[in-house]
Amino acid sequence: MEDKYSFAKKLIKEAADFIKNKMSESLAIQVKSKHDDLVTNVDQETQDFLISSILKHYPNDYILAEEGEVHHSISDGNVWVIDPIDGTVNFVVQKNHFAIMIAYYEEGIGRFGLIYDVMNDLLLSGGGSFDVYLNEQKIEPYRHKPLDRSLIGCNAGLYLNNDYGVTHLISHSLGVRIYGGAGISMLKVMTQELIAYISYIQPWDYAAALVIGQKLGYKIQTFEGRAPDFQRRQKLMFFPESEWKYFESYLDI
Amino acid sequence: MEDKYSFAKKLIKEAADFIKNKMSESLAIQVKSKHDDLVTNVDQETQDFLISSILKHYPNDYILAEEGEVHHSISDGNVWVIDPIDGTVNFVVQKNHFAIMIAYYEEGIGRFGLIYDVMNDLLLSGGGSFDVYLNEQKIEPYRHKPLDRSLIGCNAGLYLNNDYGVTHLISHSLGVRIYGGAGISMLKVMTQELIAYISYIQPWDYAAALVIGQKLGYKIQTFEGRAPDFQRRQKLMFFPESEWKYFESYLDI
Repeated sequence: MEDKYSFAKKLIKEAADFIKNKMSESLAIQVKSKHDDLVTNVDQETQDFLISSILKHYPNDYILAEEGEVHHSISDGNVWVIDPIDGTVNFVVQKNHFAIMIAYYEEGIGRFGLIYDVMNDLLLSGGGSFDVYLNEQKIEPYRHKPLDRSLIGCNAGLYLNNDYGVTHLISHSLGVRIYGGAGISMLKVMTQELIAYISYIQPWDYAAALVIGQKLGYKIQTFEGRAPDFQRRQKLMFFPESEWKYFESYLDI
Repeated sequence: MEDKYSFAKKLIKEAADFIKNKMSESLAIQVKSKHDDLVTNVDQETQDFLISSILKHYPNDYILAEEGEVHHSISDGNVWVIDPIDGTVNFVVQKNHFAIMIAYYEEGIGRFGLIYDVMNDLLLSGGGSFDVYLNEQKIEPYRHKPLDRSLIGCNAGLYLNNDYGVTHLISHSLGVRIYGGAGISMLKVMTQELIAYISYIQPWDYAAALVIGQKLGYKIQTFEGRAPDFQRRQKLMFFPESEWKYFESYLDI
């Protein structure tokens, strides 16, 4: 497992260099499900780069990835979960504030995860048997902070609609932050810049945070209290497990 | 004027060091107008540091500043407008994503402005007769981008309430970003990570962006189309002047 983890840490930096080299070229942008759901040639090419490197080293492993139809079941065998560019809108518009995410699972059990904020050179990695580090700095487990001294990251749509009472919960905090990427937002939860993150997201958006977060006292679940299904887009909350009873009292669930 | 501008650039870095030295100490936090309107001892001490440095060098100049009752009229004489820590909530919770802002006006005419994102070491400065730089990089004037390929920064309250139709305007962009600070948000407008910023803000929140932005094709005004009054908190929009007719068509004004 040490070897696979070292390989993943090296690979994610190589993928970042791959993206940065492509950033000077003009992007081919396509709209996916709706006007603000974008994909670029760099998303696809970076995913291809990641998959080919993984399968070259580990030909018997499987892939669950954002682009295309590479959707192996999380519970079957050794599965790498990949988001080549999380926060594609930020990537296109800001050329900043996007992340590469990689997670590795065996028979549905998370072994390690990596979230790399490319332009700010912040690599959060660990989980399973590995301690969590932000670059060279060891990250400590969650320690209680009062909600009224905390910030919550949220998807704009859920916030506008007050889905499950999330806007009500947020009104008891110091406020909302909307950064436009699950990766950079969940990284900020685990470095305690945010206390929680609420969004409507896919397996490759949460697979890495789930396994890293377990090591630090965080949990990801639906508003019905279920674990995410690793199959479809779901409304999920990533939060310190020890705060759940308190948060729940402000939610409409 | 060259001397004053050089002095200001040096001073803002000294104030940043002052803040960073204080960050290891525990903060004394006070609630101002409401639970999410905070001030710390470091806000006040940094303002005192800035004012005493300015008045030592320029004893005949005046100050318009955030904390206390240092509210000289912008239109009378040589006035330094100071926000010692813009984004105090981010400063308290995140220890990141806050700015120091300084602007210098003569008889109401902006001569230069500075916005310093302290923890990310990004200094945006210029305006009046000075070209605009982000650190060593010259910033070019605004160049047209389609709204549906752009992001808009907004205050959470205005966004939730759709004040003046801002949420409708934002729905025609790629989305909203909520960063929790006028300084860092308006810096992102001028580096073209955002196309506009909408908030409910005070003179020290916009004085620097107004003078820097004029040099780059940006304007700040109320939703009634008036210049800000430099006296009270107002709902304002900071945007590329050339896009106004188009933006206006989506607003309820």
